[in-house]
Amino acid sequence: MSRATQSPSKRANAASVAAVAAAGPAHAQGEEASSLWGAGAPCGACKFLRRRCVPGCVFAPHFGGSGGGGAGAAQFAAVHKVFGASNVAKMLSRVPVALRRDAASTVCYEAQARIADPVYGCVGTILALQHQVN
Amino acid sequence: MSRATQSPSKRANAASVAAVAAAGPAHAQGEEASSLWGAGAPCGACKFLRRRCVPGCVFAPHFGGSGGGGAGAAQFAAVHKVFGASNVAKMLSRVPVALRRDAASTVCYEAQARIADPVYGCVGTILALQHQVN
Repeated sequence: MSRATQSPSKRANAASVAAVAAAGPAHAQGEEASSLWGAGAPCGACKFLRRRCVPGCVFAPHFGGSGGGGAGAAQFAAVHKVFGASNVAKMLSRVPVALRRDAASTVCYEAQARIADPVYGCVGTILALQHQVN
Repeated sequence: MSRATQSPSKRANAASVAAVAAAGPAHAQGEEASSLWGAGAPCGACKFLRRRCVPGCVFAPHFGGSGGGGAGAAQFAAVHKVFGASNVAKMLSRVPVALRRDAASTVCYEAQARIADPVYGCVGTILALQHQVN
């Protein structure tokens, strides 16, 4: 795969990856956090999808489980655009509960990288890091 | 993000990334390759989706443009499972034609990495490479 056609400005900043991944999705609160549907506070994902946020919503702990989910909704918009809500819901539900926070973080990171660089996505970061290693 | 819970066997092999990315999707033939619908040979993506492969199909040059697309269909299955056919079609159609081969390659790589490691996907490779660099 040629990288010659890619603008240097498009290359993902490898140094920021760990920070982004460590930060995780907006308002990540652990899987024990439950949706506050019924109290008038849908999670960010359900707010974005304009759907009812039910107790046990798979997105709620990772995309703004409370407070209306402004940042969670914005992050989920990227995830939905790249992966699709249904695919991510299936993906999260198949991952052990203890690992879902990491799964949601990495999905968010990949989605944001693909939007920032539609050609290479986070593979651009991999190629840049491999260049540094070799 | 903690990596302590991840099995070492789940970590993507960073050394193989360049080879996978360089190989590109099955039967990548350049954007000039057109679908052979009408000659009885749907591309791998349309074969997988069981739909009519029309001339100008955005998937055809990258997922088995001829010969029934056996390998292309298998690769597209991973892409469809992770990203969804509709999302990938939009993504490819928004990328300049000259860069679509790279875009399809990286999408394939990300999809296969996410299926191999549902928690970290190709971000696992980024974290491993960052560990080597630091």
